[in-house]
Amino acid sequence: MNAYQPRLADHDFILLDVLQAPQTLAALPALAEHADPDLLRQVLEEAGKFVGEVVAPLNREGDEVGAQWRDGAVTMPPGFRDAYQAFWQAGWPSLACAVEDGGQGLPAVLEAQLYEMLSAANHGWTMAPGLLHGAYECIKHHASDALKATYLEKVATGEWLATMCLTEPHAGSDLGLVRTKAVPLPNDSESRFALSGTKIFISGGEHDLSDNIVHLVLARLPDSPPGPKGLSLFLVPKFYSDGSRSAVVCERIEEKMGLHGSPTCVMRFDEAPGWIVGEPGKGLNAMFVMMNAARLHVGLQGIGLLEAAWQKADAYAQERRQMRAPGSASNAGEADVIALHPAMRRILDTQRAWIDAGRVIGYRTALELDTLKHHPDAARREAAARWCSLVTPVLKSAWTEQAFSGASACLQVFGGHGYVREWGIEQHVRDARVAMIYEGTNEIQAIDLLLRKVLPDGATALRTLLAELAVELGDSPAAARTREAMARLARFTGEHLLPHTQAAGAAADTPYWLADDYLRALALVLMAWAWSRIGATAGADAGRWSQAQAGFWRWIWPEFEMRLGMLENGLTPA
Amino acid sequence: MNAYQPRLADHDFILLDVLQAPQTLAALPALAEHADPDLLRQVLEEAGKFVGEVVAPLNREGDEVGAQWRDGAVTMPPGFRDAYQAFWQAGWPSLACAVEDGGQGLPAVLEAQLYEMLSAANHGWTMAPGLLHGAYECIKHHASDALKATYLEKVATGEWLATMCLTEPHAGSDLGLVRTKAVPLPNDSESRFALSGTKIFISGGEHDLSDNIVHLVLARLPDSPPGPKGLSLFLVPKFYSDGSRSAVVCERIEEKMGLHGSPTCVMRFDEAPGWIVGEPGKGLNAMFVMMNAARLHVGLQGIGLLEAAWQKADAYAQERRQMRAPGSASNAGEADVIALHPAMRRILDTQRAWIDAGRVIGYRTALELDTLKHHPDAARREAAARWCSLVTPVLKSAWTEQAFSGASACLQVFGGHGYVREWGIEQHVRDARVAMIYEGTNEIQAIDLLLRKVLPDGATALRTLLAELAVELGDSPAAARTREAMARLARFTGEHLLPHTQAAGAAADTPYWLADDYLRALALVLMAWAWSRIGATAGADAGRWSQAQAGFWRWIWPEFEMRLGMLENGLTPA
Repeated sequence: MNAYQPRLADHDFILLDVLQAPQTLAALPALAEHADPDLLRQVLEEAGKFVGEVVAPLNREGDEVGAQWRDGAVTMPPGFRDAYQAFWQAGWPSLACAVEDGGQGLPAVLEAQLYEMLSAANHGWTMAPGLLHGAYECIKHHASDALKATYLEKVATGEWLATMCLTEPHAGSDLGLVRTKAVPLPNDSESRFALSGTKIFISGGEHDLSDNIVHLVLARLPDSPPGPKGLSLFLVPKFYSDGSRSAVVCERIEEKMGLHGSPTCVMRFDEAPGWIVGEPGKGLNAMFVMMNAARLHVGLQGIGLLEAAWQKADAYAQERRQMRAPGSASNAGEADVIALHPAMRRILDTQRAWIDAGRVIGYRTALELDTLKHHPDAARREAAARWCSLVTPVLKSAWTEQAFSGASACLQVFGGHGYVREWGIEQHVRDARVAMIYEGTNEIQAIDLLLRKVLPDGATALRTLLAELAVELGDSPAAARTREAMARLARFTGEHLLPHTQAAGAAADTPYWLADDYLRALALVLMAWAWSRIGATAGADAGRWSQAQAGFWRWIWPEFEMRLGMLENGLTPA
Repeated sequence: MNAYQPRLADHDFILLDVLQAPQTLAALPALAEHADPDLLRQVLEEAGKFVGEVVAPLNREGDEVGAQWRDGAVTMPPGFRDAYQAFWQAGWPSLACAVEDGGQGLPAVLEAQLYEMLSAANHGWTMAPGLLHGAYECIKHHASDALKATYLEKVATGEWLATMCLTEPHAGSDLGLVRTKAVPLPNDSESRFALSGTKIFISGGEHDLSDNIVHLVLARLPDSPPGPKGLSLFLVPKFYSDGSRSAVVCERIEEKMGLHGSPTCVMRFDEAPGWIVGEPGKGLNAMFVMMNAARLHVGLQGIGLLEAAWQKADAYAQERRQMRAPGSASNAGEADVIALHPAMRRILDTQRAWIDAGRVIGYRTALELDTLKHHPDAARREAAARWCSLVTPVLKSAWTEQAFSGASACLQVFGGHGYVREWGIEQHVRDARVAMIYEGTNEIQAIDLLLRKVLPDGATALRTLLAELAVELGDSPAAARTREAMARLARFTGEHLLPHTQAAGAAADTPYWLADDYLRALALVLMAWAWSRIGATAGADAGRWSQAQAGFWRWIWPEFEMRLGMLENGLTPA
């Protein structure tokens, strides 16, 4: 079975035709010079070539051999280091970093697509550079000039890789419980702190891909208050500038369900000297600056993983013959290809409907990130911030969920052959499972959406977003259906949910019980919007898009009605 | 984390209180002597003890070490052989075999619960004896007296294990494509045939658990017609009575996503002498005699696997503290146990709702198998046959689907700790995945239900079954809701679907597109019935059952409305 290969025509259609990215970029002075379809297409083409030729072929062995720990050192699977060295030297990590920091200053939407393709090709390998851009933003916006002088360009270009050291054994979703300590080093000329503690689940905490590793570490200063407000952020490198090694040890790597190409490290800090990044007690703020981008990337991972699984299942379904399909008039031997069997068609079209709509929403989110950063008009930046804030948790949660359940559906296309390793499809199921957990579990995303983004402002942002989306719809039957659904979700939120939660004596837990269904309902509304836009763009000659479009309305969309009913019932439990 | 332990009080409540099994068994002369609650309870207790003490502790190492192939021989994981020898010597495989064949003549419903517990404890180990009863029935009803004399008791007692050799590389769901040949041996005193061909996905094709292995093999006689009608069934042992070894070789075992404790073998037959079982061209019939029982057992595997995952997640959720739960008034430190967080509560209660309802439906199906075999009244036997025919594919499909997605939800309770091997929860996800595929994929089950069981008789059997189920409901609100749903499904089937498929020029593929939604709708109706019965039995003092009951109606039941809508829309595509 062939490895994943990017299908660039699909990317181009969504980015250039459906979303008309060049128009968006043309309004951003810093990016206007890249608002050229040919240039965007060319970058994607080069990216696709690198991904397909260099990264994708390493995926299988990356899973089978895995990262190997020995005496604190981690050896990456065959070919991983060479591919990474070629990757950063070709300038891919710095695609969307500022030119003055050694980057190329290209739009974030290109980086988003690059990482979608990389995740599809080799999820394990991609974990290593996956954190770079966040670390770059974090250092750029919060570190001192002295720290930036040493670390910013190295991280921007990817010459040195980076980690985020947050989780501890007792502190996962609840970072307020973090115990790692940072004690000021007396008489240190660089005003450093000694960090002590154990961090777990550190992706790429140790490896042989790059010559140095830059750890960003959440820790607690002496006498800091308990809880999240007592957390500060620190930078501890594997090697200091003088070549000496820091007191940071990789104690072991985890045995995992999948993602074997990425070492998940237990990192012990033994009074390791490091610098504070940003202000004391503002550690979470400094990390959250990169949260929207990181969550968007996890959502795009979901899309990439699903595309990879779909490619395998689709190819198999076009080849494997079992039984005659109902109503088959084929003359080809005793059995038809299983792609003609309705149950298999449904699986394949359903995944395509998720992938295509996910790309519309994901690439649009990346364009909104570009807009947020670069648009001269404050109102437009505010609208972009609204989009990112509301849509990102939905994309992260719903598309990582689908990456797992959809990869499992693709496995089903192979029958028993899917359960054995031979065809490689089961690796996608195992790899995809982690994305529902990291960067905030999907349950946390749902709480973030409803409790932090929708309810606090009286649903104003949500209603504004839906109104803006409605404007972009044409007047097809699909558009009308989408508009009606938007109106119903807005009405439920404003006329039922809000008054309910604001009523005197309202139970504090009601919205927590509804959060998952609410996120799901919004995901479906966004998908309906995306498919209305694809339909309007593809037009009557929808070709390759028409099957997935029909699949969306038939097999995915009915869930909206169910979720809305569950939300309504949730306000008046039996 | 502790291994699975059977919770017998739950089993007893469903079997004795909800289903009142003793009353059912008392009507069956062959089993009436076992219609004693204390006796049933005692057998389950002994079974639970064996499962918990002997089989469950081997599960983890079974996954990690796995079955090992070398030069055609397969070494099972540590402890597997000893446990199996103790198992058959204690008489467990022959629990429900006839006394005259060396069995104990106990009800099938006890065997069903035994295998549910075994699957929960150690899915890989349980694969080996899992096929015994089917092989026993097959030999008992189809083999010649001479064959029976040698093999029946050995298979009934489990002293020798058995396989079903059906699948070939090009013939999976479509057994009509089988190519293995059986050629009469000239001048053979036992009228044997030489079997040649390659079979794949043979569970337990080779191992060191028992001293002999009995292969039941689908193959094609010379000049037989193409397709399924050309298939006959043969018996080929690993060792003949004279101690010589047959020309059956295990070429390799598969690398799989999970189920590492069970060797999935590629078996090559090189003119291996064997005997025909049953008549020429009737091979599939002889195998299908055991199909309902085998599919019921896979459904119960689903329940067992889900129970095992739930036990782990529930224990973890009672211990792990993260954040305050909304509205928490607890004084216990900085964080509450996550079992108090709504999102975790929902996951746990949802799985319990599936497990408990699944047991009502599964144990009842096993009681119907007992009734089908032993009831003196032909009408009652016919009703039992109707139940088994309609309910078995639903149980197999919906509960194996839930075993996988529910085990994944249980993994989510652990957050990042669920993705690493340490806690053992990810093994359940990997193991459970296979049950959606084997014994007929879940898509095949849906087609079996709608195309072979519901539509051909004009939905008479379905409507009769629903009417019989409705009689068993009381008059609670839940019962009324269940009755209404039954009426709606019957009405859709009789007044919309049937006329549509029977109309002149009807598209042959319409029911194939609807089959999955139809099975799902029936699964939900059966669950509603089960929960109405549990509710009526548990009464006002529902205690442990009330949370799962509420969970069913709130989070699972709304899907019924959605499926019915999808079915209706499926008859008038947009």
